[in-house]
Amino acid sequence: MATTTTGDSFKENNPDLTRERSHASFSINEITEILDGGVDKTKFRKEMEKMLFDDPLFKDFYKNFFKTRSELYEESVARGVKLFSLRQKYKWTDEQFEVIEDLVNHLFGMSLHFTMFIPTLERLATETQKAKWLPLATNFKILGTYAQTEMGHGTYLQGLETTATYDSVTEEFILNTPHKSSMKWWPGSLGKSSTHAVVQAVLIINGKKYGMHPFMLQLRSLDNHMPLPGIEVGDIGPKMTLDYNDNGFLLLKNVRIPRQHMLMKHAQVSRDGKYTSSGPNKAIYAPMVLVRVKMTKWVHDALRQAITTAIRYSAVRHQSKMSDSGPEPQILDYQTQQYKLFPVLADTYALFFMSRNLRRQYDRMMEEIRNKGSYKMLAEIHSISCGLKGLSSKLGIDGASICRTACGGHGYLKVAGISEVLGLLHSVVTAEGEYTVVCLQTARYLMKQIAKVSVEEVVTGSSEYLNVDPQSYSCPLQTPADCLNLTFLCDIFRNRANCLHITHASEIMLKSDSLSWGDDLDDFELEYLLGDYTDSETIADSACKKPKNDIQCSGYMCPDCNKVLKTISGFPGHTSKQHGRAI
Amino acid sequence: MATTTTGDSFKENNPDLTRERSHASFSINEITEILDGGVDKTKFRKEMEKMLFDDPLFKDFYKNFFKTRSELYEESVARGVKLFSLRQKYKWTDEQFEVIEDLVNHLFGMSLHFTMFIPTLERLATETQKAKWLPLATNFKILGTYAQTEMGHGTYLQGLETTATYDSVTEEFILNTPHKSSMKWWPGSLGKSSTHAVVQAVLIINGKKYGMHPFMLQLRSLDNHMPLPGIEVGDIGPKMTLDYNDNGFLLLKNVRIPRQHMLMKHAQVSRDGKYTSSGPNKAIYAPMVLVRVKMTKWVHDALRQAITTAIRYSAVRHQSKMSDSGPEPQILDYQTQQYKLFPVLADTYALFFMSRNLRRQYDRMMEEIRNKGSYKMLAEIHSISCGLKGLSSKLGIDGASICRTACGGHGYLKVAGISEVLGLLHSVVTAEGEYTVVCLQTARYLMKQIAKVSVEEVVTGSSEYLNVDPQSYSCPLQTPADCLNLTFLCDIFRNRANCLHITHASEIMLKSDSLSWGDDLDDFELEYLLGDYTDSETIADSACKKPKNDIQCSGYMCPDCNKVLKTISGFPGHTSKQHGRAI
Repeated sequence: MATTTTGDSFKENNPDLTRERSHASFSINEITEILDGGVDKTKFRKEMEKMLFDDPLFKDFYKNFFKTRSELYEESVARGVKLFSLRQKYKWTDEQFEVIEDLVNHLFGMSLHFTMFIPTLERLATETQKAKWLPLATNFKILGTYAQTEMGHGTYLQGLETTATYDSVTEEFILNTPHKSSMKWWPGSLGKSSTHAVVQAVLIINGKKYGMHPFMLQLRSLDNHMPLPGIEVGDIGPKMTLDYNDNGFLLLKNVRIPRQHMLMKHAQVSRDGKYTSSGPNKAIYAPMVLVRVKMTKWVHDALRQAITTAIRYSAVRHQSKMSDSGPEPQILDYQTQQYKLFPVLADTYALFFMSRNLRRQYDRMMEEIRNKGSYKMLAEIHSISCGLKGLSSKLGIDGASICRTACGGHGYLKVAGISEVLGLLHSVVTAEGEYTVVCLQTARYLMKQIAKVSVEEVVTGSSEYLNVDPQSYSCPLQTPADCLNLTFLCDIFRNRANCLHITHASEIMLKSDSLSWGDDLDDFELEYLLGDYTDSETIADSACKKPKNDIQCSGYMCPDCNKVLKTISGFPGHTSKQHGRAI
Repeated sequence: MATTTTGDSFKENNPDLTRERSHASFSINEITEILDGGVDKTKFRKEMEKMLFDDPLFKDFYKNFFKTRSELYEESVARGVKLFSLRQKYKWTDEQFEVIEDLVNHLFGMSLHFTMFIPTLERLATETQKAKWLPLATNFKILGTYAQTEMGHGTYLQGLETTATYDSVTEEFILNTPHKSSMKWWPGSLGKSSTHAVVQAVLIINGKKYGMHPFMLQLRSLDNHMPLPGIEVGDIGPKMTLDYNDNGFLLLKNVRIPRQHMLMKHAQVSRDGKYTSSGPNKAIYAPMVLVRVKMTKWVHDALRQAITTAIRYSAVRHQSKMSDSGPEPQILDYQTQQYKLFPVLADTYALFFMSRNLRRQYDRMMEEIRNKGSYKMLAEIHSISCGLKGLSSKLGIDGASICRTACGGHGYLKVAGISEVLGLLHSVVTAEGEYTVVCLQTARYLMKQIAKVSVEEVVTGSSEYLNVDPQSYSCPLQTPADCLNLTFLCDIFRNRANCLHITHASEIMLKSDSLSWGDDLDDFELEYLLGDYTDSETIADSACKKPKNDIQCSGYMCPDCNKVLKTISGFPGHTSKQHGRAI
């Protein structure tokens, strides 16, 4: 930095930044209000900033980088306690609390108590169970978490190994994590904080397995916080970031809990061990979708921080010369720097509007569910949120990586904050639906929609553009000015997507490894959970019932003998009979 | 993980890995020896592993992830002391010590004492100065580092602000870092360890600046290790990784050192302030090139660790099902996992052979310098090592990022080691020549070679393929078997590169912002340092002296009026006269 522009005090406003800001071609207030969601919300955010950032617990977050894991944890618990008491004091709405969460970068402990433990009780417990546990939870007499993922299984829930075996003699469930791979692994706030957990375990009655069910388990003594007998619990150790959260492990050895500790709203076990179930409750899937919807917003928030830092740095940093006599320019003036940062800036804005739109669709769905009891939108919102969570997480790590390197050595320092953002975004890629798994969810949804269109069914919602036959599509661009017409451009993008989908669909149907693609479909947690909303018919079969395009979809060619089969379901027989291979 | 394959002990060999290894289609010993560089070297490495990893200082590196920054630093200093004493005891060669460095993942302190401080004295000090300081350094009576980069300048060395003003009355230099931006920033081992430093500062005599020169400065008392008067020194704080190294800052306020503390082998200041210089010493550039050559190897080493972890994890992890009745497959069997990991595995091997080849070229160059005093190869090796350092660092962070996410949540844990690798590789992107800067170095070299070819000059070395006229090129592939002929494939790649270079060269010459590209050329530290080896003639001018292809290279079109100018140097006059614009 040349001294003429930076001055020697780190406190004063940097003249480069002041100048850049004064030259903005847009109204800074206006864009701020759009990003906050309106004038009132900007006002609320600024009030909250003032209140919170005066508090030593919340100000100077950069100091976190100098702290040990224990310090980070302890302070995040203190922040959680503070926020929860403020929440009660000011009666913040959920929407307002989301603003607070964003403000403090989610750096507070015990958030799962509110986001998973209490909501799970509300959804899965009977009225009697709620009457017992909810008051304890809302008054912080107990602190809870949600324990599902195991060391050996995350994506594939049917593979979970933790068992809850019913003993009708004592009317108890006996909880076990039979192998090291069965230990619960990752639940937030489990390692050190929680006294209770909702534990997902395979229900076993008289030797018969009934699949995954939720159980209320007390982990630690309410007197001295020590683990109860048969329970081994602790922290899973340092992570790429998120070290303020005590993600934990949990080993269970013949831990007995009363029959009444199974959450029995949707499935029940009677005293004598009779199992009844009213089937899966559609309402429980919506919150899982919400997490992914929120994640697209988190990616925006994180990338916004990274790109803001990188662009400000590039405005402040002066280096090299463009001509012998001139001054050292701001590095933002180099084309090479612009090529790096401006696309990330554009992505960041795109992510904002995308995530806002997605959230609005989610809210509309919840309104339909509440008002009409209609779950019609769930499958689509699930599919869109999967794909967009995947896409945004990828844009996030790629963008943050660019921002990190665009700040040179200074970006390598933790205090720059970008490496922390990059670490945080890495968690979004694999958490709550691994990247590839969620992308395939959306891919499958699209294939199903194409299958419908191919039999002349009209599809609605976000995939409406599939109804148009690309062969009859005509480009709306007539004049150069049309190229700036956003409606036209979106229309062209829709047609492009349509063409690509159809091409890929026919490739999938015809190519030699369509079988393994078909088999891969079992790979989806959500597919399983959303059983009601996805059907088991083979995509390709459906797509070929009445193909629009005979060439692309006339059948399925056997990769071994080139014989064309009418339906894909005929393959196993053909392959084993003609080629002696099991599939 | 299914219990049938993992067992319940973490100590025993995993049966999945045992089975995979037994099915290898190649000789594991053979590939090991290739990677080590021969049977003897494998033997040496294994002996060293045995010796070092029995030592508590070197075993169980994963425990580092649980340590504080202070602990990391203290242990790395202990490891450094241990390694240096072993080096003296066993009289390891430089080559052998490089093996040791790789073995311990470079996790030891004070490495700059050997890699920069002593070599700088050897190259830049007079015989008298060497006689005084080298024995102290080699016997660890003083510990040194090399302080060049400042908070405000890294790439552009002419911009360095630290000053050394000669006072002929006292026959001393007065060292100052006049602004906050002038403080030395980043030197390894500076923050806490070093007693001395070679400091690069702008020499000023009687108000006249003589550019950057090296000065020997004692930083801390040899009695109590406290900073000497006028010196403020400390650690620059936590980084993305590398926290075992006390990278430091240094502020100097009127620090006086004797005239004899300027390293005077190549430039001298007499008692009465007379400056003499024998010009830049070509030999000093070779070690800078060596660092980049080594970095391509480090990228390979780091990526090798990441891809090994990711592939082993994918062999051990079982998840989901491919058919209803089958077992949960190893996730390595999913195509989606293979698409992620196998290209990274291929890159890792490519990086190995590339870096080995590059090192051999470097060694050959050094031999030529030693035996014949010929620096002929320097410009080319500089250019290749720049581009390959840039390319490999990019392959490194992209590949490590893929490995991280391919391991799901488990890859997010620090003990998996991949996030550490990713952090380490991020440093390679920006250190020792920022990514874009080094890539442009290579680009410029290629443009210059093309310029030579365009005037019928024959170029040699790595860019020999440019001599071929692409229009007379004929593809060597005749039969399907030819597609497996590596010589043919390399030949095709060379032709492809040639065509791309020529296309880009003509684009650069003709496109409207060729001027800014031309101006950007001042952006290179190395360009500056290698002054002797690069010339100042305009690339485009030279390329157009006698163009091979009249269409591509007939002149320079003005973007404002489409007038074609013969030489690019005519632009400033044309633009200011015809269009009233300064460039």
